[in-house]
Amino acid sequence: MLDGQFHEGQGGDTDTDPAVGGIAADRLRSIIERVERLEEERKALAGDIKDIFTEAKSAGFDVKVIRQIIRLRKLEPAEVEEQETLLDIYRRALGI
Amino acid sequence: MLDGQFHEGQGGDTDTDPAVGGIAADRLRSIIERVERLEEERKALAGDIKDIFTEAKSAGFDVKVIRQIIRLRKLEPAEVEEQETLLDIYRRALGI
Amino acid sequence: MLDGQFHEGQGGDTDTDPAVGGIAADRLRSIIERVERLEEERKALAGDIKDIFTEAKSAGFDVKVIRQIIRLRKLEPAEVEEQETLLDIYRRALGI
Amino acid sequence: MLDGQFHEGQGGDTDTDPAVGGIAADRLRSIIERVERLEEERKALAGDIKDIFTEAKSAGFDVKVIRQIIRLRKLEPAEVEEQETLLDIYRRALGI
Repeated sequence: MLDGQFHEGQGGDTDTDPAVGGIAADRLRSIIERVERLEEERKALAGDIKDIFTEAKSAGFDVKVIRQIIRLRKLEPAEVEEQETLLDIYRRALGI
Repeated sequence: MLDGQFHEGQGGDTDTDPAVGGIAADRLRSIIERVERLEEERKALAGDIKDIFTEAKSAGFDVKVIRQIIRLRKLEPAEVEEQETLLDIYRRALGI
Repeated sequence: MLDGQFHEGQGGDTDTDPAVGGIAADRLRSIIERVERLEEERKALAGDIKDIFTEAKSAGFDVKVIRQIIRLRKLEPAEVEEQETLLDIYRRALGI
Repeated sequence: MLDGQFHEGQGGDTDTDPAVGGIAADRLRSIIERVERLEEERKALAGDIKDIFTEAKSAGFDVKVIRQIIRLRKLEPAEVEEQETLLDIYRRALGI
């Protein structure tokens, strides 16, 4: 049985899985509450990241340059080198 | 002293706060590693949320409607009622 | 020939497609300028949309409810009806 | 009078501003249709930008590096230079 589907309410079902209006209310509530909790955590993490950048700025670091560093650290060393070479070539081609 | 600022390297400084090229390398590394760790956690949470919606769909629930429910649960009951009243009025005005 | 690729500079090429540092500078410049122009337009449109919502608010409309209407107008009438039915069922199941 | 507000329907009002259910239906419809049109344009622009990057890739250019170039062109020359200097210092401090 797919719990979320409409189904005939059955007496024996009710204790573990109370079906209100034909759906598995407990299952639905669990899904929604877990999503809400995870979204709260995501929001908290976004706030923590923002706080670290505020701290970095207060300590005299350049936040944009830190973001560049974080971008570079996600790449393989060979990729970093290749991108730098290309960036130089493109800049010279454009005269910037 | 603002650690991230350029400053004269001093011998006595080096053990606790090695300044490479005139900046507080340890402080910078700590900032970057903390941001990277939090961004990893955010990505993991986004994956967890996606998994729950996949579970919800497999269980026969409508994911769009669950998102509506989550939106409504963020509002005060009076706000929900007001929005519903207005939605009805606007829909009637537009003939939809 | 792929214009962006590195290639041997040739005298005859230079007038129509000046290759600086081995790449097709004009082609690169054209690509970049077109992207920049389109991004400008996108930003302008985002501003225009914001202005309309400001106008709507000044005229006494509820902006959140207008967004709901816009969401509903993207759906087929049968989908709207199905979502409303499910929303009612889920709300009753959750007691909200 | 704020057009979107609830107000007493009046006979003389109806020709220019038919108030259905007490709201300015024409005004509401105009707002919604303008937002929808602008959102369509935004979506079209996003598609156009994607097409240009596809073209750039086919022409042998590196799309990530083009994005770097676009980022740099938004800055003043002095800012570009400052960011490059800092990037070098931070990278040396981190040993990357």
